Amino acid sequence: MKIGRQEHHSSAISTSNEATILVRGHDLARELIGTISFTEHLWLLVTGTLPSPAQRRLLDATLVAIAEHGLVPSVQAARLTLAAAPEALQGAVAAGILGCGSVVLGSAEAAGRFLAEVAARAGGSGALDTVATEVVRSYRAAGRPIPGYGHPLHKGGDPRAQRLLELAAELGVAGQHVAIARTAERLLPQLTGRELALNVSGAIPAVLLDAGYPLLALKGVPLLARTASLVAHLLEEQQRPIGFLMSNAASRAIDYDGEAPPGFKPSEEA
Amino acid sequence: MKIGRQEHHSSAISTSNEATILVRGHDLARELIGTISFTEHLWLLVTGTLPSPAQRRLLDATLVAIAEHGLVPSVQAARLTLAAAPEALQGAVAAGILGCGSVVLGSAEAAGRFLAEVAARAGGSGALDTVATEVVRSYRAAGRPIPGYGHPLHKGGDPRAQRLLELAAELGVAGQHVAIARTAERLLPQLTGRELALNVSGAIPAVLLDAGYPLLALKGVPLLARTASLVAHLLEEQQRPIGFLMSNAASRAIDYDGEAPPGFKPSEEA
Amino acid sequence: MKIGRQEHHSSAISTSNEATILVRGHDLARELIGTISFTEHLWLLVTGTLPSPAQRRLLDATLVAIAEHGLVPSVQAARLTLAAAPEALQGAVAAGILGCGSVVLGSAEAAGRFLAEVAARAGGSGALDTVATEVVRSYRAAGRPIPGYGHPLHKGGDPRAQRLLELAAELGVAGQHVAIARTAERLLPQLTGRELALNVSGAIPAVLLDAGYPLLALKGVPLLARTASLVAHLLEEQQRPIGFLMSNAASRAIDYDGEAPPGFKPSEEA
Amino acid sequence: MKIGRQEHHSSAISTSNEATILVRGHDLARELIGTISFTEHLWLLVTGTLPSPAQRRLLDATLVAIAEHGLVPSVQAARLTLAAAPEALQGAVAAGILGCGSVVLGSAEAAGRFLAEVAARAGGSGALDTVATEVVRSYRAAGRPIPGYGHPLHKGGDPRAQRLLELAAELGVAGQHVAIARTAERLLPQLTGRELALNVSGAIPAVLLDAGYPLLALKGVPLLARTASLVAHLLEEQQRPIGFLMSNAASRAIDYDGEAPPGFKPSEEA
Repeated sequence: MKIGRQEHHSSAISTSNEATILVRGHDLARELIGTISFTEHLWLLVTGTLPSPAQRRLLDATLVAIAEHGLVPSVQAARLTLAAAPEALQGAVAAGILGCGSVVLGSAEAAGRFLAEVAARAGGSGALDTVATEVVRSYRAAGRPIPGYGHPLHKGGDPRAQRLLELAAELGVAGQHVAIARTAERLLPQLTGRELALNVSGAIPAVLLDAGYPLLALKGVPLLARTASLVAHLLEEQQRPIGFLMSNAASRAIDYDGEAPPGFKPSEEA
Repeated sequence: MKIGRQEHHSSAISTSNEATILVRGHDLARELIGTISFTEHLWLLVTGTLPSPAQRRLLDATLVAIAEHGLVPSVQAARLTLAAAPEALQGAVAAGILGCGSVVLGSAEAAGRFLAEVAARAGGSGALDTVATEVVRSYRAAGRPIPGYGHPLHKGGDPRAQRLLELAAELGVAGQHVAIARTAERLLPQLTGRELALNVSGAIPAVLLDAGYPLLALKGVPLLARTASLVAHLLEEQQRPIGFLMSNAASRAIDYDGEAPPGFKPSEEA
Repeated sequence: MKIGRQEHHSSAISTSNEATILVRGHDLARELIGTISFTEHLWLLVTGTLPSPAQRRLLDATLVAIAEHGLVPSVQAARLTLAAAPEALQGAVAAGILGCGSVVLGSAEAAGRFLAEVAARAGGSGALDTVATEVVRSYRAAGRPIPGYGHPLHKGGDPRAQRLLELAAELGVAGQHVAIARTAERLLPQLTGRELALNVSGAIPAVLLDAGYPLLALKGVPLLARTASLVAHLLEEQQRPIGFLMSNAASRAIDYDGEAPPGFKPSEEA
Repeated sequence: MKIGRQEHHSSAISTSNEATILVRGHDLARELIGTISFTEHLWLLVTGTLPSPAQRRLLDATLVAIAEHGLVPSVQAARLTLAAAPEALQGAVAAGILGCGSVVLGSAEAAGRFLAEVAARAGGSGALDTVATEVVRSYRAAGRPIPGYGHPLHKGGDPRAQRLLELAAELGVAGQHVAIARTAERLLPQLTGRELALNVSGAIPAVLLDAGYPLLALKGVPLLARTASLVAHLLEEQQRPIGFLMSNAASRAIDYDGEAPPGFKPSEEA
């Protein structure tokens, strides 16, 4: 059945024939393989052009920053899934990626929308304090958290965020979005009553939007970065499995408070 | 309930405290972000040590080689999924990754097992022709295809495979696994009666195993590479949607041959 | 690291010991297996109590209604995925389920929220026309479609929706949510300028909310129903594969409009 | 590009026009909705014909049996994923389904292949002991576990398996596959040196293959059943969240044994 109305019927990313694969107009085998890095290739795929050295270094830095942070929920989901279904590594990676959501790991995109909204409203006016205050208040009026601030472990400041902002400054890329990120960090204690330092998911869009990376592809950064981490964890899970150990510990932490016949004794491990 | 017997209860990839995140023993914010590339980070995550320049270049080359090849099934699944569920980019990426299987895209791992089996049986003997012939015959006796050879479009040879092998030679990394890949390519016509050139999924394990990348993480290369391509396609899908157009074309290509009441006329679009 | 603040640390669904599995307080093996239907079990799992005959019949009817509608995007994604990765049926089912989103198939939940908002604002007042008009206008002011109305194929009315509403009336269950669904259908032409008949995703929450099924589990109905359909399609894909045929047709429908060297001729199949 | 050679280009499950949806030749709205149960619909979708009462009762029983068993890995993965990505219930369900693999939950299909192999080799001979012994020995020679036997919690026998076999006998459906399942259970202690009672994943194929359900759709039973359980758990997760609590408990159970600078103190929660 015909669903939706779609006017375009073309794609501009790649085409091929028997001898040649073109990617964004470049001959993949003769021009790209062995010549550019994977990060340059990502920039090319997403934007259609190769990055400048500063753009490449910032994209590398954000991918390195968000890839790995221990046994977080997405990694646990992937390792549990591989333990249960070792025949399909791709399934375990997919399970991990599905945890890249609005609450954990995936908030870089939401933070990018926040920064972009302040930037759009401020225009070239420079009145960042006023505009940022308005936007923060509109989020709070709608009951929405301010994305990109606060961290359950790194309460005094997320070291990854600080390093990314430093790097953007070193490379001469820091611009309006970084300024907005810093402005909001300064204003938040008085607007929300809480100290909320910029976190890695706030710093990533700040530096990448200033570098010219597209807003609608921001979520790809944590998604791709975490996939690298999942590959490492799933190799370790094959060699030194902990999936079922984590599952047993998780289930022991939760009680059963539903109905049961008098005298029913749950198994200790259940 | 207690599932499985697992002796280890530790992980060696990452740990952290409020001020510092350690990844493979390195201070993430102070030593890695802004210093190493994402590809170097992947090698570090997977193996525990930073790569040599040649290792890094080969890993970059394989990731660039396998990332993108147009509107293949995994990309279509992802774009269809985003069209139906635009609220969850991670779901569309996961749907694409699930198509990285044993038949399409994911055969680098199977090809790696083939090369590793020949290498293990040959030892240092150098009798690659004899051993490769034996292993090919054992695959065929079991009804298994030889993974890493043949391509539906690039019948005269996969230009990505040729480039990867050239690069491994240039970098001085080409060793026994590349030799086995070439040996099998030479032997296959007489053993199978078909011309089957080495494809990209055969070349990736050949060069990476020679470079010291672990066999059990080989599938991570197409998985990670394709994720980069999916990010680009899903950006394009947001800006110039074709998901439903592809779906309509696909359903029009298939007839209904089940039961129907006399005179029933299916919708043309159904 | 500690993420989130969660006060509860218990679950009320199931517990077990070596001899017995309890589900919602019932002995699974001795009381439920062989005694109740799967649909009754679903109601028990979700609500904690067994359904009345009318509740069971309505839940059965909604699951039957939404399970299958041919080669729709979710089914295509699943069949493409199985063709590429036949080693993991669960991966193909997951790929199909990921297309149960806000645009296609998953809109029963959004429609339920619409009906529940009108019901909550109307209270017992009976002023459904006034309140429904207000809520429709608020959706339109926010640029949101009215979920549960209109269908690309069934323009004169979705036969599944009509049957579900009839059945709710026959069973004496039709109440305020059904009344709201009908009211909105009557008002929409004047409020939107378009004839938009109630569709299956609007009828499902109308009848289930009137039957006492919880709003926050509504999306489970299309998800579970479509899983049944996916099992059938994936059996057919194993026996009479069409995955790659659909993929080829889909890619042929899309042109390449990116850069290419002068004279480059794409493969006809690319 | 053209992948694979596929001769069929039709599907026999469903077709439609503006007024009517046909499913397996039946008018969905006029003949099926409100008339048949969801379990009957599943049988119809999968096999093309409506089930007998005994077939329906056995399929209901197997779905009820395997749906729910507490906070097992697939449920944990789904609840973790919803906690991280509450915007996409379908993503959390997909993450849970991906854990329906060869080791946990998904072994009904493997057990079905085992039973079917013994049945095929035995033919009508009735020499089940001899043939089952041969097949068990061939599995063990290949290092494969015998699927469908043993359970980490229900060591004295899985109460669900016993109930399913009783029910098949009551309904007069128990035939050769049930006989093989019982034969293998009797032989396993001497062939393997371990007491391994038939578990639910062994009983499901035994009773369903005897009832005429297709082998290649067996995995659909745990997949569909677990989806019902996931819907219930994800409703509870929305109302009484435990996802992050489980994640914290799981990560606390695992030590870090990689490199660290002298004196580095991990966070207690990390």
